[in-house]
Amino acid sequence: MSTPLNINRRNSSALYKKAKEVITGGVSRNTIYRRPHPFYVAKANGSYVTDIDANTRIDFANNMASLIHGHAHPVVNEAVISQLQRGTAYTMGTGIEVEFAELLTERNKNFEKIRFVNSGTEAVMAMIKASRAYTGKAKIAKAEGAYHGTYDFAEISQIVKPENWGNIDQPNPVPVTYGTPKGVLNDVVVFPYNDTERTIKLLEANKADLACVLLDPVSHRVGLFPIEEDYLVAIYNWTRKNKVLLVFDEVVTYRVAYSGAQELYPVTPDMTALGKIIGGGFPVGAIAGNADVMSVFDPTRKVIKQPHSGTFSANPITMTAGKVAMELFDKQGVDDINNITNIAKNQLRDVIKEADVPVVITGAGSMFRFHLRHNEPRSHRETYQNPEEIKLIKEILDYLFYHEDLMMINTFACMFATTITQVEVDRLTEALFNAFKKYKKEIHSFAK
Amino acid sequence: MSTPLNINRRNSSALYKKAKEVITGGVSRNTIYRRPHPFYVAKANGSYVTDIDANTRIDFANNMASLIHGHAHPVVNEAVISQLQRGTAYTMGTGIEVEFAELLTERNKNFEKIRFVNSGTEAVMAMIKASRAYTGKAKIAKAEGAYHGTYDFAEISQIVKPENWGNIDQPNPVPVTYGTPKGVLNDVVVFPYNDTERTIKLLEANKADLACVLLDPVSHRVGLFPIEEDYLVAIYNWTRKNKVLLVFDEVVTYRVAYSGAQELYPVTPDMTALGKIIGGGFPVGAIAGNADVMSVFDPTRKVIKQPHSGTFSANPITMTAGKVAMELFDKQGVDDINNITNIAKNQLRDVIKEADVPVVITGAGSMFRFHLRHNEPRSHRETYQNPEEIKLIKEILDYLFYHEDLMMINTFACMFATTITQVEVDRLTEALFNAFKKYKKEIHSFAK
Repeated sequence: MSTPLNINRRNSSALYKKAKEVITGGVSRNTIYRRPHPFYVAKANGSYVTDIDANTRIDFANNMASLIHGHAHPVVNEAVISQLQRGTAYTMGTGIEVEFAELLTERNKNFEKIRFVNSGTEAVMAMIKASRAYTGKAKIAKAEGAYHGTYDFAEISQIVKPENWGNIDQPNPVPVTYGTPKGVLNDVVVFPYNDTERTIKLLEANKADLACVLLDPVSHRVGLFPIEEDYLVAIYNWTRKNKVLLVFDEVVTYRVAYSGAQELYPVTPDMTALGKIIGGGFPVGAIAGNADVMSVFDPTRKVIKQPHSGTFSANPITMTAGKVAMELFDKQGVDDINNITNIAKNQLRDVIKEADVPVVITGAGSMFRFHLRHNEPRSHRETYQNPEEIKLIKEILDYLFYHEDLMMINTFACMFATTITQVEVDRLTEALFNAFKKYKKEIHSFAK
Repeated sequence: MSTPLNINRRNSSALYKKAKEVITGGVSRNTIYRRPHPFYVAKANGSYVTDIDANTRIDFANNMASLIHGHAHPVVNEAVISQLQRGTAYTMGTGIEVEFAELLTERNKNFEKIRFVNSGTEAVMAMIKASRAYTGKAKIAKAEGAYHGTYDFAEISQIVKPENWGNIDQPNPVPVTYGTPKGVLNDVVVFPYNDTERTIKLLEANKADLACVLLDPVSHRVGLFPIEEDYLVAIYNWTRKNKVLLVFDEVVTYRVAYSGAQELYPVTPDMTALGKIIGGGFPVGAIAGNADVMSVFDPTRKVIKQPHSGTFSANPITMTAGKVAMELFDKQGVDDINNITNIAKNQLRDVIKEADVPVVITGAGSMFRFHLRHNEPRSHRETYQNPEEIKLIKEILDYLFYHEDLMMINTFACMFATTITQVEVDRLTEALFNAFKKYKKEIHSFAK
């Protein structure tokens, strides 16, 4: 399907021409780029986003999973406006950062202490550096395909393909960015997610140098399926035995349960990186974890192992919006959004059956992802989309965007907000049914 | 001077006790920590900050130089509130990011293209990675003592002392964070700022592997004195000859002139990292520079050398606040703040003379820093403060904070806002005169 000509997009098209003149590729975030041009927002409210050509779409992307209450939530806005009158940032502390730290640490007993930063990327970077500072060791281990932000060490092997991923027994550390130093590649051990035997073997081979094992309990890019409990427990036990830290990236997955997805597993990560929804719509990141491990940041110690600041870290606007958003996302709020998401998944599985297409749904909590597969993938290499599949998914997403007025994440995933009701779920189900019927032949000829 | 007992600080003291329970060291930013406890803000307006014990102080720190219009500027707030009603972040673009990109690129012809991120740390990291992606080389060169955020490669040798800085002909790469990988240390060349002969020799010795030379034209931590033109031109010419990128960190120094401090020098950096004031009080960073170099980020190219996103990058709240703040900081605005800062420096030099203390002032534009010296330092090793000097400066800053109700940056520096008038300058002058008289003997016995 080429871009339909009958869609109102004159203003977005014209604005993108101006954007390309001054912004590299016309976007600051590749995630919002689409051919032939991105679309631009005029206003958004709850789960509805209206672009500058007056198209209104239902938002199942929620700024890459970061808006747990959708757009322009009135209670969040009211609190932010009150703080605005008193200033947005100071060379001093604020009470709200303490209150928000209390709220987040009360929600999860593994979060003995916390520190705030400005993004998920900053949180993962600070957490990896803290792991090295605590252990004195240089290497980290991470899962092939997992996305953890743009810190070089964390992004190794996020994007891989059969031509470069190497033997599954010892996956290659594949750089994402051209010119990544060899020293970075040498300090990252890449393992296959949910593959206990191979992972433990790789950890064992590197145990003398490992600072931490970095894991995302429901890795979006690996395939958005939950980490398997046996696998996680095996890694956890291995880290306890070998004095290696286990650190979680819950930037995306904190939404899965009241205390984060880690609540669902019998393990205790030493540190956890947070971000996305805890900012209430504003830039945020955080590192939370074991008090002793986190003490590397402590400026009151005689030796500060990891001196750490940040001009906007813990700024009172983010803290205010985040605290209000998390108060609204209480145990009932988590249950409600997970329930409506389950209803959606059930309805969607019904239409997949009805449309008779080889499509499966993976996910956890309020997140799910479609795969053009007969069976659920359980490894990143099974999830891997070749160029032909990527092209087909783009077409389906374009169809949903242009003809069904739905926004989804470009991996063919949905991240719900609490503002999604049965009305939007029914619209989603109907739209996907139409898409599956329309692309039935292509999906069948493609799916493995 | 121990902490005076007669200062109202019961609420801040009590709040810090709670903060320590949940936040490592009680702070997310070491810059706001002070013994015996940080202070907490109740409200701020313009150049006045009131803490939760009802102490009001004049703010010469402006959130580490990031608030060019002081606190709670009504025009910025009005624009932010209007955007809040329409949402804070989307999985789409916004017109305001294009408008703001146009404004910043129009101000500086070296900024052919720009991309926004969330912090100065992220900007410098993305810029260093882009330098490697463009050149295919791994090493960077940076100045001893210079602060460029918390990306490991950028923070090497930010904190050094005579025991570890090594021979000036080849300064040691000194890690800031415990456990920094050897690979990182191997890929950073450290040179002495404003020392042409030694710097060129070091660059020459590493030219085969160098991606970029990273410079801050008025490095705060090196000593807050401007880079010398001959020195900068020598480095610039060397980079042109050897196909190495020259990249600037103007996160702090963009305020110095209408187009950034680079406007004052006859060189063209390939890229510049921005942050601080361009966010209008909200978390921000940006990379701007040569279109060809910046094309490594371009998602429309067949090969994307540096895939790059960011959940909150270019969010419309930051873009709105930043654009309004920079519109208000026009050529006249820059001249005005630099003029009032010059008046302040002249008055302060007069009281230094009157108090008869060996103190000098360095700086540029709306920033200046005091040094307990007979002569202006012109290298980081001359700026270096030993523990005895640090202790004395802390005492002076405590005196100014507790008894004169002034906030300054903990290096003994001031970063002005446009809200500072002659009234605040006179108060600053009077307070410093009192401080210099009070600590005259100690300063004399200490200063070199």
